[in-house]
Amino acid sequence: MIKVGIVGGTGYTGVELLRLLAAHPQVALQVITSRADAGTPVNRMFPSLRGYVDIDFTHPDQARLEDCDLVFFATPNGIAMQQTRALLEAGVKVIDLAADFRIKDVAEWGKWYGMEHACPDLVAEAVYGLPEVNREQIRTARLVANPGCYPTAVQLGFIPLLGAGLIDPAHLIADAKSGVSGAGRKAEIPTLFSEASDNFKAYGVPGHRHLPEIRQGLARVHGNPVGLTFVPHLTPMIRGIHATLYGRLNADADLQALFEQRYANEPFVDVMPPGSHPETRSVRGANRCRIAVHRPQGGDTVVVLSVIDNLVKGAAGQAVQNMNLMFGLPETTALENVPLLP
Amino acid sequence: MIKVGIVGGTGYTGVELLRLLAAHPQVALQVITSRADAGTPVNRMFPSLRGYVDIDFTHPDQARLEDCDLVFFATPNGIAMQQTRALLEAGVKVIDLAADFRIKDVAEWGKWYGMEHACPDLVAEAVYGLPEVNREQIRTARLVANPGCYPTAVQLGFIPLLGAGLIDPAHLIADAKSGVSGAGRKAEIPTLFSEASDNFKAYGVPGHRHLPEIRQGLARVHGNPVGLTFVPHLTPMIRGIHATLYGRLNADADLQALFEQRYANEPFVDVMPPGSHPETRSVRGANRCRIAVHRPQGGDTVVVLSVIDNLVKGAAGQAVQNMNLMFGLPETTALENVPLLP
Amino acid sequence: MIKVGIVGGTGYTGVELLRLLAAHPQVALQVITSRADAGTPVNRMFPSLRGYVDIDFTHPDQARLEDCDLVFFATPNGIAMQQTRALLEAGVKVIDLAADFRIKDVAEWGKWYGMEHACPDLVAEAVYGLPEVNREQIRTARLVANPGCYPTAVQLGFIPLLGAGLIDPAHLIADAKSGVSGAGRKAEIPTLFSEASDNFKAYGVPGHRHLPEIRQGLARVHGNPVGLTFVPHLTPMIRGIHATLYGRLNADADLQALFEQRYANEPFVDVMPPGSHPETRSVRGANRCRIAVHRPQGGDTVVVLSVIDNLVKGAAGQAVQNMNLMFGLPETTALENVPLLP
Amino acid sequence: MIKVGIVGGTGYTGVELLRLLAAHPQVALQVITSRADAGTPVNRMFPSLRGYVDIDFTHPDQARLEDCDLVFFATPNGIAMQQTRALLEAGVKVIDLAADFRIKDVAEWGKWYGMEHACPDLVAEAVYGLPEVNREQIRTARLVANPGCYPTAVQLGFIPLLGAGLIDPAHLIADAKSGVSGAGRKAEIPTLFSEASDNFKAYGVPGHRHLPEIRQGLARVHGNPVGLTFVPHLTPMIRGIHATLYGRLNADADLQALFEQRYANEPFVDVMPPGSHPETRSVRGANRCRIAVHRPQGGDTVVVLSVIDNLVKGAAGQAVQNMNLMFGLPETTALENVPLLP
Repeated sequence: MIKVGIVGGTGYTGVELLRLLAAHPQVALQVITSRADAGTPVNRMFPSLRGYVDIDFTHPDQARLEDCDLVFFATPNGIAMQQTRALLEAGVKVIDLAADFRIKDVAEWGKWYGMEHACPDLVAEAVYGLPEVNREQIRTARLVANPGCYPTAVQLGFIPLLGAGLIDPAHLIADAKSGVSGAGRKAEIPTLFSEASDNFKAYGVPGHRHLPEIRQGLARVHGNPVGLTFVPHLTPMIRGIHATLYGRLNADADLQALFEQRYANEPFVDVMPPGSHPETRSVRGANRCRIAVHRPQGGDTVVVLSVIDNLVKGAAGQAVQNMNLMFGLPETTALENVPLLP
Repeated sequence: MIKVGIVGGTGYTGVELLRLLAAHPQVALQVITSRADAGTPVNRMFPSLRGYVDIDFTHPDQARLEDCDLVFFATPNGIAMQQTRALLEAGVKVIDLAADFRIKDVAEWGKWYGMEHACPDLVAEAVYGLPEVNREQIRTARLVANPGCYPTAVQLGFIPLLGAGLIDPAHLIADAKSGVSGAGRKAEIPTLFSEASDNFKAYGVPGHRHLPEIRQGLARVHGNPVGLTFVPHLTPMIRGIHATLYGRLNADADLQALFEQRYANEPFVDVMPPGSHPETRSVRGANRCRIAVHRPQGGDTVVVLSVIDNLVKGAAGQAVQNMNLMFGLPETTALENVPLLP
Repeated sequence: MIKVGIVGGTGYTGVELLRLLAAHPQVALQVITSRADAGTPVNRMFPSLRGYVDIDFTHPDQARLEDCDLVFFATPNGIAMQQTRALLEAGVKVIDLAADFRIKDVAEWGKWYGMEHACPDLVAEAVYGLPEVNREQIRTARLVANPGCYPTAVQLGFIPLLGAGLIDPAHLIADAKSGVSGAGRKAEIPTLFSEASDNFKAYGVPGHRHLPEIRQGLARVHGNPVGLTFVPHLTPMIRGIHATLYGRLNADADLQALFEQRYANEPFVDVMPPGSHPETRSVRGANRCRIAVHRPQGGDTVVVLSVIDNLVKGAAGQAVQNMNLMFGLPETTALENVPLLP
Repeated sequence: MIKVGIVGGTGYTGVELLRLLAAHPQVALQVITSRADAGTPVNRMFPSLRGYVDIDFTHPDQARLEDCDLVFFATPNGIAMQQTRALLEAGVKVIDLAADFRIKDVAEWGKWYGMEHACPDLVAEAVYGLPEVNREQIRTARLVANPGCYPTAVQLGFIPLLGAGLIDPAHLIADAKSGVSGAGRKAEIPTLFSEASDNFKAYGVPGHRHLPEIRQGLARVHGNPVGLTFVPHLTPMIRGIHATLYGRLNADADLQALFEQRYANEPFVDVMPPGSHPETRSVRGANRCRIAVHRPQGGDTVVVLSVIDNLVKGAAGQAVQNMNLMFGLPETTALENVPLLP
């Protein structure tokens, strides 16, 4: 059994980790920390877990995380980088669901996240946890930077095209729409029901923190920097990201075959039949990305539709997938639940 | 392996059965019928099932249901009663998720459902599939009438009080609120998104078909007829029923203890701590009923709050629970998934 | 022109007052206060008001409210009682949309609101602003206590029955469902979109602050104290209250005629035809209460369905209605907009 | 008073016309037709209109539309073209809210709408009813083709840029998101609440009927054909369209000033301050388009955000605006209601 600890268990990625880990046959949940709610039973805050999770939140100072085999950070940005070195030195593996280890250029990271990085050397060591790109490195990693939700949906949609050199890499457009849970479980007015329901808006058009992460990932595939316009939107649903991606084709190709071949062996990427329009609900609660590729009216613009559940393939599910890889388990363990539809 | 057939697989109870059965280790799904969609892959209609269900819908005339061990009817009312006798005679067990076998008084049934019953003798034989009441009879039944969604939530909430003789049985009130999936996957204007969202209404106040079913179930517990006012409402969510039940206390008692004892051994009924307000999302996607009991200001009115997922404990999940009982499997097989929250 | 000030303009009742007053031909909006947002243009916070409201929020200390003819308090409870005396002495009329002046029994008020009342004499003077009951007193009032949202819907539904002495006054039941805007524009986790959407729950079952207000209003109609069980629920819509009311009939009567006669001259109460099920959206954005009365299966339980928009007839619209009465204007001025459906 | 008739009053554009016309001081509503619901009071189908609209639906054969001054067609495509000639010859003006007269190239129209056009000469005569482009022609028109909802939002966003020749006209991208009411009040499974809520999807990516309409409008502004990729999406809200528009800049310019000058005298186009992200709810129920223009990271891609209420500025409101122009009334008559927020 893998002894698991979770730092910051009161947010949506935290409770989603609990949902998935509760069904994992190889995981023993040791500890979940919360500074504000120490002593509270986890299932009092989340009654959905009654019967599945019976421990209390532990104050970070009492958590004894070094006794775990693996620690997930489901914390705000800037926390994991303070605690990771000590854990690694104690032989504990770490998966950070926040952004602390995602951006290799720590100066760039500092610019977008508004703080100085505490451990640039660990950034260098960390493996970016997108198994469809870095599966082998993840298997042997001590420290995995779990990708952001938008970056997962956008990268998986662009990778086949960029990898094949089929589109103009200087003018990529990613128009992405997220459910409200992507904003986290924080008491803020803009994500109140009465503000966010029956409403649609873009946000962060001048610049969103996921932009450098996506650019870095796409540049790695392309081999050179790429130009990307990324516009995120808030849509009135709880879960789900729909990325609509636009690229200018610079050569002819069988796009459907390209995508199918690229993802032929991927357990969690589903290339849908030609003409499909994937719906976010088709992956609700599941660790899966569904993709369709279109070439409207046979023109020179390719349109890729890519959907994930932002809390699963976009966060906690991908983290469990990474954990499975890091511990030599079948990659799909505890990740085979059927999406909830309707 | 239990060879299973489903008649009428294109509605919400049908797809929900598929979601649950896909994860059932003892079930081999043989056939799903649909007159209108014969030949269509099931997972083209429901892409959430891609990777889990790979068969096509079969025309009812080609279905060879008699080769199954068990057939679920997820059909409109009036279908199962036409086909059940032949199946039973062929040695096939039947679980009807519609209302054909729920009401013992076939004249009463005919009044509410607007047709004459085709097989009153099978109504007499059928076991009402509420395991918390009829577990032992279900184990040996050939034919199970799976309860309605409202009746499940309302009966589980009233049973401890009526069983203990603590409330006036002549003036029960059940104010129930259902998500829209309870209306089924039928193309009708009142359940369009633009009609049903951002809106709340009562319906069927003069009389709803679940009224006689609830009355029958409560009368059985009480030992005599009961008086019930039942008001269903439509609330803008997909899944979930919240029943708010009112009764006049005629004796003093420790209500919390009463409920806890009644359901102490029930795997799927969760009596919450005193003062709780169960939320429908705490059972979303799960075969579970959560109940809280209140006595506001210490007065003589008891208020019971009872929540289920109408498609799971209110339909397909309860049907699988009944199947497990009928085939001697552990009752919770394939029904232990954690609710999806948020 | 009536010079109007609003104290506390950043909540939902504040912005709703602005929406209605912007269209009022006899109102000159002088000042809107906000401690936190002083200096911010109102229409930057609420872009829906661009083109209609062009003033900034003013710090309370600079507000010169005594120059107004009328001040609305759209503040949290406990604010209006601190400032009302000075305004009245300066000749300014006051309408409080909070609860400070609603409960005549100040000890009872203190128990439910957790503070001592600052001016019991003004509570005694204040007129409860339900025009369907107190129209004449409102016309001459200096100080109006605008009713709560639940109390408006519940009282209007019970008044005809209690006034006619037709139901048992000791065992009234009000099962009420509110949209999320009723909780106000406050940054709190339980009213986040991801918590409150696709979910339904009761709250405050042991006791809700609107209970004593409703009891007081019903007692006035009945002539003696009444017994009431009041259970509020949160439903995933922005606006709207649906009250489902239950009473035990103690005499026979033509209930439809009773309701129609009681409200025959009321511009904002619509008794719907027999058999109707009013929907909350049928009053969305409008100062209107729609009511239907049922007697299921001809039994001895009467069921009343009463819907309002909690922000209009349940708050800001009723406040404008009261203002019209206090200033001798036609009661319906600026309140005749058609509900927004769909 | 303008005597007005409405053909096809049971859809969402029909009821929205009624909402707006009920408040119009110069309109006398003469007749509303419905084949299926003839004889039914309009306000029984739409109780929101109780107290405002007191007529019944009339069978088309009894409608005497030729006695009207103006007839609105709120019908499915292909109806207006059958009846318009007779009305025009009787001296009745016509505004078609469907697509019959929008596309000047009748062969192209036939290809997208699947039928042959009945009156190409009237298509030639019809004025495209986008007042921000064709105001003067609308004033004198007998026949106005009211624009589609997507075309309104997309054209208003691109017009300043194309008019100034600032963007590459061959590679425009319009990523548009619509509320579900855009699909109309038709009983269809994909727009059921349980299908469309908590879900997001693209549709019509290979080609949507609004594509040729948008292309035609943009070509007129540009002076030559344009290349456009148009991807519509369905988002779980009732009303609203959010168009996110992308263009490649080919010259430098003060984009904010460009937009502000272009729309300086437009009563219903609101160019928001730099850095804004317009929300669909900021125009809910109002005849208004709000626009913001961005140039992310100062690159060569311009991003325009354009929001409307699809039923108002995208349909019925724009139709009333056109009516006001055609009859010499102030353009804003009956269109000054404040958006409903929250």
